[in-house]
Amino acid sequence: MRIIVQKFGGSSLSSPEKRLQAVNKVIAAKKEGYSCVVVVSAMGRKGDPYATDTLIDLLKEIHPEIKVRELDMLLNCGEIISAVVISQLFNKLGHETIVLNGAQAGIITDNVFTEARILQVKPERIIKSLEENKIVIVPGFQGITETGELTTLGRGGSDTTAAALGVALEAEYIDIFTDVDGIKTADPRIVEEAKTLDVVTYTEICNLAHQGAKVIHPRAVEIAMQKNIPLRIRSTFEETPGTLVTNLGHANKVEIPNDRIITGITQVPNITQLKINLNAKENGKKLNLKIFRALALANISVDFINIYPEEAIFTVKDEDTEKAVKILQNMGLEVFTTPDCAKISVVGANMAGVPGVMATIVEALTEENIEIMQTADSHTTIWCLVRKNDMEKAVKVLHKRFKLG
Amino acid sequence: MRIIVQKFGGSSLSSPEKRLQAVNKVIAAKKEGYSCVVVVSAMGRKGDPYATDTLIDLLKEIHPEIKVRELDMLLNCGEIISAVVISQLFNKLGHETIVLNGAQAGIITDNVFTEARILQVKPERIIKSLEENKIVIVPGFQGITETGELTTLGRGGSDTTAAALGVALEAEYIDIFTDVDGIKTADPRIVEEAKTLDVVTYTEICNLAHQGAKVIHPRAVEIAMQKNIPLRIRSTFEETPGTLVTNLGHANKVEIPNDRIITGITQVPNITQLKINLNAKENGKKLNLKIFRALALANISVDFINIYPEEAIFTVKDEDTEKAVKILQNMGLEVFTTPDCAKISVVGANMAGVPGVMATIVEALTEENIEIMQTADSHTTIWCLVRKNDMEKAVKVLHKRFKLG
Repeated sequence: MRIIVQKFGGSSLSSPEKRLQAVNKVIAAKKEGYSCVVVVSAMGRKGDPYATDTLIDLLKEIHPEIKVRELDMLLNCGEIISAVVISQLFNKLGHETIVLNGAQAGIITDNVFTEARILQVKPERIIKSLEENKIVIVPGFQGITETGELTTLGRGGSDTTAAALGVALEAEYIDIFTDVDGIKTADPRIVEEAKTLDVVTYTEICNLAHQGAKVIHPRAVEIAMQKNIPLRIRSTFEETPGTLVTNLGHANKVEIPNDRIITGITQVPNITQLKINLNAKENGKKLNLKIFRALALANISVDFINIYPEEAIFTVKDEDTEKAVKILQNMGLEVFTTPDCAKISVVGANMAGVPGVMATIVEALTEENIEIMQTADSHTTIWCLVRKNDMEKAVKVLHKRFKLG
Repeated sequence: MRIIVQKFGGSSLSSPEKRLQAVNKVIAAKKEGYSCVVVVSAMGRKGDPYATDTLIDLLKEIHPEIKVRELDMLLNCGEIISAVVISQLFNKLGHETIVLNGAQAGIITDNVFTEARILQVKPERIIKSLEENKIVIVPGFQGITETGELTTLGRGGSDTTAAALGVALEAEYIDIFTDVDGIKTADPRIVEEAKTLDVVTYTEICNLAHQGAKVIHPRAVEIAMQKNIPLRIRSTFEETPGTLVTNLGHANKVEIPNDRIITGITQVPNITQLKINLNAKENGKKLNLKIFRALALANISVDFINIYPEEAIFTVKDEDTEKAVKILQNMGLEVFTTPDCAKISVVGANMAGVPGVMATIVEALTEENIEIMQTADSHTTIWCLVRKNDMEKAVKVLHKRFKLG
C-alpha cells in the first residue's frame, strides 16, 4: 500500500466550494494509486458556528474561567463535525469513506488537556479500513488518554495529527493543504517578488515556522523528521506542486541547492523590548533567575534574552507587557520598555560557517537607516529586533540583498 | 447517597435564560440533599446551530443519503456541546461538575446506529464522581458499542438515557423536565379546562405517550418501570410539582384514585385510511401477509389494522400514503384512500372490565355528528379514527363526557 496523509486546515474547509476543492485533491491522489488518510481541522474561523474559536466563545460568554477537561471535550466536536461533513461530500461523489475519531484512529495522548502530546499511535484500524479501500477521514487536533479522557493537541494540532499518522503509517507523503501554494522566501503581502521554494529542509521549515511563517506547526515538522517522511506544503485551490520538505540527499532525489545560503525572511510584529537595570542590585545572577522564573510562572513567553552583569534585556509580546512590568516592579526592579518592535528572522540551513552573513544584514539595514535594537543568532538563523515601523522595509531590503526574488 | 436523575430537553435549553432556570432546578435538588445526575438533550430546535435537526441538515444539504454510522458520530456532538455549556453555567455559579460522555458514563449499546438500544450501564465512574460531591452531567441520546462505535438512541433518546441511568443508579426519582407542567388529561391547546394529573401509572403514561402525548418517550417509561423507579414529569419554568409516574400502592404512598376510569384523551392527526378490496383475489390470507411485509420493507408504519376475508383496512401516516399506494398498486391491488384522518385515543388503566366505556364514546361522538370511521381497543385504551376536521371537537366532547376537567 502506498499511503498518503492529506491535511486540510479550517480555511480550506470554510465553504461548500472550498470543501469540494479539498475533496478533489484527495480524489486526485486516490486516482494516482494512493491509499488516502484525510486529516481535517474544524470548519472555518471565529464566527463560523463549528469553528474552534466559536466553540470557545460559547463558554467564555458564560464565564471567563473554563475547565480544560470539558473544553477539550467540546473542542473535539469541531473536528468531528468537519470530518463527517467531508465524509458526506465524498459519499455524494461516490467514494467510500470511514470517519475514525481520535480514539478510533488510535491517537493516544498524555492527559495535559488543551496541550496534549501524542504518546503513541495505534494505526491498526486505519490500516484495516485502507485495506478495505476506504478513504479514512480523521478529525485532527484530538486524541484520547489511556483512561478514556478526550484531549486536544493545542494550536496547530491538526498538523501534528497528520504528521503522527504519516509516521505511524509510514506514509509516502504528508500533504499539508493550506491557502498558500507553499513556503515563500518572504511574506508576499510585504515582498511582491517573494518566490515559492520548491524544496526546503526540515530544519529550515522549523526555523521559518517558529519565526512567524504560519503554514505548518513546528511540532508536526519535528515528528515527520524523526522518520524522514517527506512533507508537502500545498495549496487547496491551485494546481501548483507546492513546497517539498525533506532532507538533503533524501531518497526522493531532490537536492537542495548547495549555494542557497539564505532560505527566507520572516517577521513577527508586536513585540516589546524590556531592559532591566541590575546595577544597583546585589547578586544580579540570582535575581536573573528569579526574574525568568516569575515570568514563566505567569505564563509569559520571553525571547531574545541577553543577560549582562549590569543589565538584562529581553522581549515579550506587546499583549504581555503590562503584566510583565507589574511583576518586575513588584520585585523592586527598574524596567525600561520599548513597545511596538518586530523580530526579523533570516533563515538559512547553510549559513553556518559562511562568513559575512551578519555583516551583510547589518550593512543592508544600516544603509536604509533601520535601527537594529538587538540581534541574536544560531547556526541556521539570524534574528534582528527592529522597530515595527521599520519591519516591512527591513524584510524587503534583506530579501533583495540576499537575492531571494 | 440519595441519587436523583434530572433530564432537560432541547426546548428547556434553548436560551441562556432557560438554561439558567434548568440549572437552578438541579441546584434546588442538591440543596435538598440529592446527589444529582443531569441528562441533557441538544440545545434548541431546528435552526439553532447545535440542535439535532440542524446537524442532520448539514449532511442532507450535501446529499440525501446519509451513512448512519457517521451520522451518529455527528449527532453525538449536539448533546456534548449542550452538556459542556451547562457545565460551564454550573461552574459560574460555583458548583463543581464533571461531564461524562456516553462512553465515560458507561452507556453500552448495541450497534444499530440511529436506533441503538442500551444493553448495559456501567455506572462506576458516575458513582465515583457523585461520591466526590460533583454534579454529573451526561449528554443524553448517546452511547458506545463494545467495539468503540458511537451510537444514538433514536428520538426521545435523552429520556431513555435518564431512565437507564436512574435504574442503574437506583435513583430515588427520575425527573423529566419539559416545557409543560406535567401530564394533562388532554392537549391544553384543544381543551382549555384540561387538568394536570398528579399521578399516573407507568402503563397509563406509556399508552398516552404512544398515542401522541409527547412529554416522555415510552421506552424510557418501560425502562423505569422495570425497577419501579418513580418518574416525575415537571416544568423547567414553573414551581408546580408536576406529574408523578409510579405504580399503584408504591412505596411513595401515593394512591391513584380507583374510581378514575379514564386518565386522558390524546390525538394523532395526519393519518390516511386505506381500504383494499381482496374480493376479486384468490387466497386473501396470503395476500394480506404479502401486503404488510411489503409495507414493512418500505419502512412504512401501519396502524389500526382490521383484516377481513374480503377486505383489509389500515392506516398510514399521510406522508407515507403515496409510497404505500404505489407499492399496493404494483401488487395489482385496488386501493381506496381517505386522507386527513385523526386517531383519538381514550386512555385509562382502570377501564378494563368497566362496561359501557365504548358505548359512552360512540354515543358522545354520534350526538355531535362526528363520523367514527374505525375503532380498536385494548384493555387500557380505546381508539377511534375520525376525520381531521372533527378531531378537536371529538377531543373536547370526550374530555367533557368523561368529566376530566
